[in-house]
Amino acid sequence: MSQFRVLIDANDEKGLVHKVSTVFYNLNLNILSNSEFVDKESNKFFMRSLVDGDVDKRALSSAIKEVLPLDTTVKVIEPKKKNIIIMATKELHALGDILIRHEAGELEANILAVISNYDKLESLVNKFDIPYVTVSHEGVDRETHEQKIIDSINSYGDFDYIVLAKYMRILTPQFVETYEDKIINIHHSFLPAFIGANPYKQAYERGVKIIGATAHFVNNNLDEGPIIAQEVIHVDHAYSWKDMQKSGKDVEKVVLSRALKLALEDRIFVYENKTVIF
Amino acid sequence: MSQFRVLIDANDEKGLVHKVSTVFYNLNLNILSNSEFVDKESNKFFMRSLVDGDVDKRALSSAIKEVLPLDTTVKVIEPKKKNIIIMATKELHALGDILIRHEAGELEANILAVISNYDKLESLVNKFDIPYVTVSHEGVDRETHEQKIIDSINSYGDFDYIVLAKYMRILTPQFVETYEDKIINIHHSFLPAFIGANPYKQAYERGVKIIGATAHFVNNNLDEGPIIAQEVIHVDHAYSWKDMQKSGKDVEKVVLSRALKLALEDRIFVYENKTVIF
Amino acid sequence: MSQFRVLIDANDEKGLVHKVSTVFYNLNLNILSNSEFVDKESNKFFMRSLVDGDVDKRALSSAIKEVLPLDTTVKVIEPKKKNIIIMATKELHALGDILIRHEAGELEANILAVISNYDKLESLVNKFDIPYVTVSHEGVDRETHEQKIIDSINSYGDFDYIVLAKYMRILTPQFVETYEDKIINIHHSFLPAFIGANPYKQAYERGVKIIGATAHFVNNNLDEGPIIAQEVIHVDHAYSWKDMQKSGKDVEKVVLSRALKLALEDRIFVYENKTVIF
Amino acid sequence: MSQFRVLIDANDEKGLVHKVSTVFYNLNLNILSNSEFVDKESNKFFMRSLVDGDVDKRALSSAIKEVLPLDTTVKVIEPKKKNIIIMATKELHALGDILIRHEAGELEANILAVISNYDKLESLVNKFDIPYVTVSHEGVDRETHEQKIIDSINSYGDFDYIVLAKYMRILTPQFVETYEDKIINIHHSFLPAFIGANPYKQAYERGVKIIGATAHFVNNNLDEGPIIAQEVIHVDHAYSWKDMQKSGKDVEKVVLSRALKLALEDRIFVYENKTVIF
Repeated sequence: MSQFRVLIDANDEKGLVHKVSTVFYNLNLNILSNSEFVDKESNKFFMRSLVDGDVDKRALSSAIKEVLPLDTTVKVIEPKKKNIIIMATKELHALGDILIRHEAGELEANILAVISNYDKLESLVNKFDIPYVTVSHEGVDRETHEQKIIDSINSYGDFDYIVLAKYMRILTPQFVETYEDKIINIHHSFLPAFIGANPYKQAYERGVKIIGATAHFVNNNLDEGPIIAQEVIHVDHAYSWKDMQKSGKDVEKVVLSRALKLALEDRIFVYENKTVIF
Repeated sequence: MSQFRVLIDANDEKGLVHKVSTVFYNLNLNILSNSEFVDKESNKFFMRSLVDGDVDKRALSSAIKEVLPLDTTVKVIEPKKKNIIIMATKELHALGDILIRHEAGELEANILAVISNYDKLESLVNKFDIPYVTVSHEGVDRETHEQKIIDSINSYGDFDYIVLAKYMRILTPQFVETYEDKIINIHHSFLPAFIGANPYKQAYERGVKIIGATAHFVNNNLDEGPIIAQEVIHVDHAYSWKDMQKSGKDVEKVVLSRALKLALEDRIFVYENKTVIF
Repeated sequence: MSQFRVLIDANDEKGLVHKVSTVFYNLNLNILSNSEFVDKESNKFFMRSLVDGDVDKRALSSAIKEVLPLDTTVKVIEPKKKNIIIMATKELHALGDILIRHEAGELEANILAVISNYDKLESLVNKFDIPYVTVSHEGVDRETHEQKIIDSINSYGDFDYIVLAKYMRILTPQFVETYEDKIINIHHSFLPAFIGANPYKQAYERGVKIIGATAHFVNNNLDEGPIIAQEVIHVDHAYSWKDMQKSGKDVEKVVLSRALKLALEDRIFVYENKTVIF
Repeated sequence: MSQFRVLIDANDEKGLVHKVSTVFYNLNLNILSNSEFVDKESNKFFMRSLVDGDVDKRALSSAIKEVLPLDTTVKVIEPKKKNIIIMATKELHALGDILIRHEAGELEANILAVISNYDKLESLVNKFDIPYVTVSHEGVDRETHEQKIIDSINSYGDFDYIVLAKYMRILTPQFVETYEDKIINIHHSFLPAFIGANPYKQAYERGVKIIGATAHFVNNNLDEGPIIAQEVIHVDHAYSWKDMQKSGKDVEKVVLSRALKLALEDRIFVYENKTVIF
């Protein structure tokens, strides 16, 4: 008996649920949970099923594809730990939260390595017997720096996601394109607000009563990729911008870990710069 | 072309989704949205589908029942305004919120009448051209009082829900049984805390930092029926119990209106003193 | 025995609390509550005290001013109902919430009138025996329209606040300047996000997971006045922009009523496009 | 120039603020922030001031005590790292969050040691070069076990707080009395709900839509000490009790860290089984 996550992304038409559930039925699979969504505006159909039964993964995938339109995307995934690469700069809170969750067994993930442009977090990461790679950006141009990072990433073999846990360098379009829908970032603001440098200072000067954070996939619109999760906290006039930044760290780590968990459990569909999350 | 809400409550077994979706497919129905849940502990299956197509309501209901196990509950509901009776005592906030939402067209409901044991809210209710019935409990025993209320309820014909918008009298087991799963109450606490009289005073004396409210169906366990919706707000030491009560009113009205909306849209299944909400 | 709210807004210097509390002590006043805040960046001091005792309001005000620097603002206010004018367009939810709270006695306010550019809300407002004035903007230029509104406002005598309960016309700089720090608006977004037309549609297209609302004083930066209160709710992919708009209404009414309550209780200081709220 | 936190806990009477602020003024101290609260029911006055200036700590304390009633409690505290002892059992999440915050420099604390009745968390704690003491409860009676723990605590010298980061043994009344108002616990429920064993299972069976956690000082009413902080999250029917437990961990760690931070910053007053938090 195996368990599979089946993810279907299709143009909507009548009978999709019928066709897929008939495949499950004929293969004698048990549906443990099932979520569907139709976006009427774009006429897109999304379905995520958790099934178990005695079936070969490829056979299941083929059987589903056979009954669905040609341009449908079907993924059949066996639940198992995914490989992730974390990139960070100097701040400890978001990375630390992931390390502790990993240590506690809360994440379906192997952390292959942490790559940083500074060595500041090395001693922390080494405590957890995880490789730490410092790729300094000093004295090299952006392209050279990134190529070194890519080389480092490649040296760890296949991976599923790159998690930017407060990696404070802007990535080149080439880098982003290479790893499309694979890079998860935490933005220190609730998009689409205060884009750019020091959003906490901007928020302070604006006199906001709420601050937040946004986890999103990175694409080539700066800070503008598909949003996965957002959260906020209330602040008041007594918060300096540094107080906001401190409180913001708590939101940032919560939101990034939440987004990572959703990705690891294959709960996210990306389309039209948006996400469907089951 | 008609739209239907299909609600299915069955013992779980393999193939239920397949069978139902095949019925939809064969009847040429379009699935607009679809939610399912299996409670593994009790082996119960719940499904709510929104479909449209050219089909007779009874024919659809029969077709579904035909393919499902005998003890399955199937409801096919055409979206339309439901009839509700509101019961209140003296407090205005929860009733007022419902009246304003009704006036704004936010509720799929006709308010047949407001029944109260006091006349205090009469002038408010009359502003909205809704019948107001005062059934005083003074000088009569509980059974007689309730019988008068039941007579009043019956005089308005068929109804779908009784909404207790801060009705502060305890209902008899007979009353509750008569209208099982039809009475929605707002409890001035987040269950299961501070059951009984003046929960805000109890909360104050306990020094809580959070207060809340719970909307639930009424059954014969006092304040213990199936929970539909809950919400909280933060308080601090500067709140007297009357301040908590005032702030609590805002939570109460929000939660009751949310629960009512869920009921009116046929989104609630009740089982084992719990709810499944799609 | 009278109760007073004392509001002090001064440039910070040593001894301010000492000086003010000495005045209270010498006048034999009891401090019921006391809040202070120093903004170190702008070197501003804010204090709000609730005191009671047997003293004349003017005498108290003079006594405080005497001991404080010349450019200090001192307000001594007797708690009593303030006069408010509400402006609305066609939407009922925010206005309705204020009307119900007013009816329930929750607001320290007399509603002098509701002024709208449409007659749509007239029947609702009239239910509550509150004057409703339709000042149509059709066929007249902006200045003429506003002058008619100003004439209408003036006809009701002194007032403390104008509440824009979803008034959907842009006010001229002249209007805004005339009533500086007296106009409270509810913005259908959590500032500084999605400024401009149809923020819900923008939010939907951006795929946000949170929507919110902002109550603020109106100044001559469109949607950019000092923020009083903000709140958010979570949404997901299943929300169309109209669903977001519907859910947004609930946030809007909560936030506007919260801001109005703060203003009526003299809890807000405005400075540098920000607010201090005690 | 030194900075001091001044905490005053007195029976309320006229002139307290005046008297204290006069002391500050005469000593030429600058008030950086100031909070007061009067509990009218119990006639208690609480004040926390942050001041700086050129004064001796003892001189400041004496000067304040001199002008206040005899039974007043006055604390003058220089901000510096406090010493804490953490007690845990087997769960990693709450302890891990504190360790990471400590590592990030977010806590004004030295962690003297982690004491546990199991060795399960030893390797984690040792990563951070913090002493870990296993005091097994097996084969010894409760009193003997606790005496060993007390011996271990004593071996680390003076400490300010004991943090129970999911320490799952009931403490004896003697232990609790010895460290009155010094033990901070995280309770896996939002009090006063579901007291006792497996609250998540109880919550699941009750069908709640909200779960939460409570940080409180421990006294001799089981789970009933003065509440410091509470937080909740929303759940739904799809959560098994194990899912609730997992989600609950996130709330637990957030609330415990928040409470610890408040304690370390001397922001908490305890009285009548409640807290005042500035």
